[in-house]
Amino acid sequence: MQIYSIDWIGDEKGYLKLIDQTRLPHQLIYLKCHRLEQVVSAIKEMRVRGAPAIGVTAAFGAYLGIRNLRTTDYKDFYHKFSGFYKMLISTRPTAVNLKWALDRIDKVIRFYSLSSCFCDENIIAKVYNEALEIIKEDRETCYEIGINGVKLIKNNYTILTHCNAGLLATAGSGTALSVIYQAKKSGKIFSVFATETRPLLQGSRLTVWELQRNKVPVTLICDNMVGSLMRREKIDLIIVGADRIAKNGDTANKIGTYQVALLAHHHKIPFYVVAPLSTFENYASSSSRRRDKSIKTGKDIPIEYRSSDEVRYIGHTLITPRHTKVYNPAFDVTPAKYITGFITEKGIIR
Amino acid sequence: MQIYSIDWIGDEKGYLKLIDQTRLPHQLIYLKCHRLEQVVSAIKEMRVRGAPAIGVTAAFGAYLGIRNLRTTDYKDFYHKFSGFYKMLISTRPTAVNLKWALDRIDKVIRFYSLSSCFCDENIIAKVYNEALEIIKEDRETCYEIGINGVKLIKNNYTILTHCNAGLLATAGSGTALSVIYQAKKSGKIFSVFATETRPLLQGSRLTVWELQRNKVPVTLICDNMVGSLMRREKIDLIIVGADRIAKNGDTANKIGTYQVALLAHHHKIPFYVVAPLSTFENYASSSSRRRDKSIKTGKDIPIEYRSSDEVRYIGHTLITPRHTKVYNPAFDVTPAKYITGFITEKGIIR
Repeated sequence: MQIYSIDWIGDEKGYLKLIDQTRLPHQLIYLKCHRLEQVVSAIKEMRVRGAPAIGVTAAFGAYLGIRNLRTTDYKDFYHKFSGFYKMLISTRPTAVNLKWALDRIDKVIRFYSLSSCFCDENIIAKVYNEALEIIKEDRETCYEIGINGVKLIKNNYTILTHCNAGLLATAGSGTALSVIYQAKKSGKIFSVFATETRPLLQGSRLTVWELQRNKVPVTLICDNMVGSLMRREKIDLIIVGADRIAKNGDTANKIGTYQVALLAHHHKIPFYVVAPLSTFENYASSSSRRRDKSIKTGKDIPIEYRSSDEVRYIGHTLITPRHTKVYNPAFDVTPAKYITGFITEKGIIR
Repeated sequence: MQIYSIDWIGDEKGYLKLIDQTRLPHQLIYLKCHRLEQVVSAIKEMRVRGAPAIGVTAAFGAYLGIRNLRTTDYKDFYHKFSGFYKMLISTRPTAVNLKWALDRIDKVIRFYSLSSCFCDENIIAKVYNEALEIIKEDRETCYEIGINGVKLIKNNYTILTHCNAGLLATAGSGTALSVIYQAKKSGKIFSVFATETRPLLQGSRLTVWELQRNKVPVTLICDNMVGSLMRREKIDLIIVGADRIAKNGDTANKIGTYQVALLAHHHKIPFYVVAPLSTFENYASSSSRRRDKSIKTGKDIPIEYRSSDEVRYIGHTLITPRHTKVYNPAFDVTPAKYITGFITEKGIIR
């Protein structure tokens, strides 16, 4: 049975239901978000994470923000929406899907700027429909990505993935892991190595959890075992997700991706990035209100630095002297030249 | 004040005092080993670790084993010693210093095989003196290594190290970190990045602890941040320890060293291995009773695989589903071609 990490429950008066990913793998607990502020906290605290998942969540967050607005003045309405937009976009600076989804909501609202008869109820209903459309498209996209990528997986392959680009990173079946699930469905025999992905352990907590749930054989390694694994064992393919892909193909993804790509390049192992088109700057910025500011190369991608305590603690265990100085970028950028290809819902781009 | 991770306390009736490294960084607790079995457990459980430290500890372990033997028969004596030798050498298969130190004790004992007058008291005293000699030499060696390596560190350098090759890995001031301490002593201004070194976190627990104690500025990173750090920040030099160096220079060291070396090679950063001659197969096997079996290339170095629970748990926190399959090699091998040079007590070998 398909499980969703994000779902909208009920009608327009309903709520957003999210798996609280900070509680995995030991507890499967859902958050019920009735208000924008709950959505903002959930994204900031990484209770929901993964670029496509954040985009879908933010779209519903915007809807939750505006659904109680009662105003007859368009300017006032738009001003308030812009505040919500800023709150949401500032939660995570790197993932572009966040901006892409919010820009879709923005476009719906801006359509009314020229309308002689502004009616808040009408606009709120349109935003609700747009959010529903975004989640529906995300699920279809995940499926199409799986279908397009499956031909890269052959029998007896050993595949390495980093971080989590699975059902927990999208509203559907995942990006990189959707390819895995599709291969499993088509009867192929293969196995997966998952990096634990410090500091927040998305590999050991999330990827292992969902692969086991879907009966895919998975072996966990620490992040410093990647090179040795490539040298000593047979690794046939690497697939990872992405948080933002610059116009030239440079790709921001979870910290550690860059070195996995470099090591793959050295060991001559194909390295694929799996992402919906909404992660591509070219595509995501086409509907943007700030089109001119879009990002040409990896150098322009903003990198989020997160709290030192993410590295100092694991769970509640302090693993280093209390005030140890820490360097904790959440993402890195892999130059396009180390990427064999991009698997998208429209096909594989090499 | 110099702190020692290993010390012999008292006269020949004394005991071996070890810092219990599994309790660091939060508690500085000493183990007092009066019996061989305590030494064997301490090495196996990594309460003492680091190739040179294991060598010194094993020498005293052998002494603790034989000091209560009372026999007038050399063959019986040697047979019992051989049992202790096997117990000790099987604790950790990769570090060659363990074998090197035990072979020194073995040589002392074998000297008596031709003696017409076998006297157990005499032989036990000789072994005691040899163990004392080994610990004294280790401290001198650490000092000489520091003196030889210090010229590689220039003002305003940023240095990266992996795992722990410090005072906690030797009986003296360390190997890689002895170079750091010598640079500090000579007034140079520099800073250090330490990788946390999963699974057992020797970087965050041990290297950070001892560098802070010695007032060396240190920043902690996760193992998957190495590539990104090299690309985005200025890293001038990498120094690491070694557990075994094959005749051709291929070097076994803590898991993750290989990928740090490859990443350094790609980013054109000098990568030095810092180790006493006793870590070199050439040297260590010269006094061996199994000289012909010595190791020519990295391929021949045995790699220890350790318990899956080291990866599944951090402290008492289970970070993945309970029965997750794990790949956990404790070491990897860095080919000589990625090593800029070796810093030893006799100078730098390039």
